[in-house]
Amino acid sequence: MRNFTEQSITDAALGRITSECDPRLREVMTSFIRHLHEFVRETRITPEEWFKGIAFLTECGTFCDDKRQEFILLSDTLGVSMLVDAIANPSAPGVTESTVLGPFFRENPPIIANGGDLAPGIAGKRVDIDCRVTSEDGAPIAGAQIDCWQSSPDGFYDSQMGDGSAHNLRGRLTSAKDGRFWFNTTLPAAYPVPHDGPVGALLRAMGRHPMRPGHLHFWVQAPGHRQVITHLFVKGDPYLESDAVFGVKDSLVADFGSQDGPRTKVHYDFRLKKAA
Amino acid sequence: MRNFTEQSITDAALGRITSECDPRLREVMTSFIRHLHEFVRETRITPEEWFKGIAFLTECGTFCDDKRQEFILLSDTLGVSMLVDAIANPSAPGVTESTVLGPFFRENPPIIANGGDLAPGIAGKRVDIDCRVTSEDGAPIAGAQIDCWQSSPDGFYDSQMGDGSAHNLRGRLTSAKDGRFWFNTTLPAAYPVPHDGPVGALLRAMGRHPMRPGHLHFWVQAPGHRQVITHLFVKGDPYLESDAVFGVKDSLVADFGSQDGPRTKVHYDFRLKKAA
Repeated sequence: MRNFTEQSITDAALGRITSECDPRLREVMTSFIRHLHEFVRETRITPEEWFKGIAFLTECGTFCDDKRQEFILLSDTLGVSMLVDAIANPSAPGVTESTVLGPFFRENPPIIANGGDLAPGIAGKRVDIDCRVTSEDGAPIAGAQIDCWQSSPDGFYDSQMGDGSAHNLRGRLTSAKDGRFWFNTTLPAAYPVPHDGPVGALLRAMGRHPMRPGHLHFWVQAPGHRQVITHLFVKGDPYLESDAVFGVKDSLVADFGSQDGPRTKVHYDFRLKKAA
Repeated sequence: MRNFTEQSITDAALGRITSECDPRLREVMTSFIRHLHEFVRETRITPEEWFKGIAFLTECGTFCDDKRQEFILLSDTLGVSMLVDAIANPSAPGVTESTVLGPFFRENPPIIANGGDLAPGIAGKRVDIDCRVTSEDGAPIAGAQIDCWQSSPDGFYDSQMGDGSAHNLRGRLTSAKDGRFWFNTTLPAAYPVPHDGPVGALLRAMGRHPMRPGHLHFWVQAPGHRQVITHLFVKGDPYLESDAVFGVKDSLVADFGSQDGPRTKVHYDFRLKKAA
């Protein structure tokens, strides 16, 4: 096959996939190639524009290291991460909804006892977190594992502070007999996603801001139940309507109490779906 | 806006583009976001698969440097580069057709006088190249600038040899009064595109080979005419029907003469479209 036209080249590219290809990879690549070609045809991308696109991806690559993932950031800010999440974790009545994992989760967080401090040495308004893990029928789950992580009041995660090696503003808790887990920390603030790279430049070019509303991340796992990766968002945050990564759901907006005074608190029940 | 579903998130992402966005960027990003979301919905991409995709792009980034461009290779092998070329340079009767630039073009090549050697010190069958640059009406064009580059008989470009700093198997010529330019070189061989990286792994997973048929690259520019970036392919090459980058056009397949004997030759006329 040769002499491809702008129409015939798509079938030519698809036709190259052989019977040696895994059926799922064939399905994914067939759809990907079709949509990528259709995008180019529809927009009449010029060679100069295509090189700009190649340069953009290349620059995303140079920004990636063990603490920065520019391609996840691109996926997040184009709404793809939340779309993948929506497909994997459709909302179900009585079950806590999920949202994006984000790029700041880290393995091996500090173990925090109930009543402990998630943000030792971090200045800012303190908040008492008092939550519960239950099954979808409301029965408390003891021994659930809860990873929690958040940004500082200045809007930075631990990996963005100093040399990034210290673990802070994160920890792993275990729910008590009544399903409760509790700790204190600083009130999370709204912050921008990293916007000093190509994704930040793209957001600016589209006239978009990079802000996320203040939130705490939770990853809750319990035997016999489906895990949930989610956030609690701070009620009243001005960016709830325009989260740069499209992560906000009404059911995840929690009342952190009055913003006045030195201390505030929040209650929330995480309800997990029973495993099939 | 919040509580996005897998359907509503696409309009939400498009709705974030503001009036500050350049109209062309808006057009391109709107189509890109639509097709990317539709690809994810259509194939029901799982979070695990999406992370594999992110890891693939990240690995492409780590393979890029000043001599290797894995994203261009991805574009080439998925047929997108030839699609962009087909849109920019539609075939016109009596005008030499274009094909991919490829990743091996370099600025500031050696200047070669007519009759000179493009491949000094390179062993292999020699071929005398005797070509002409004319206008679409057949009138010879004197003083045209011709960049030519090619792989060695072993299938390597100069940038892939030694430390990659030497310029060889490439040069810049100027057409004589009668439009002719001529030089001698080695017969180019079929070779694989770089396949030790993620794009090579993707080709293997799709059951595809990485080979390109033997060819010489030409970039011909002349005042008052539209430039052409193209190849001459070696007639009889076994990979003409399955070029890994979809670049072959019948009009660019040239008779390099008998493959027997120590020396062979090729004639070709490059016909340029008059500038509008």
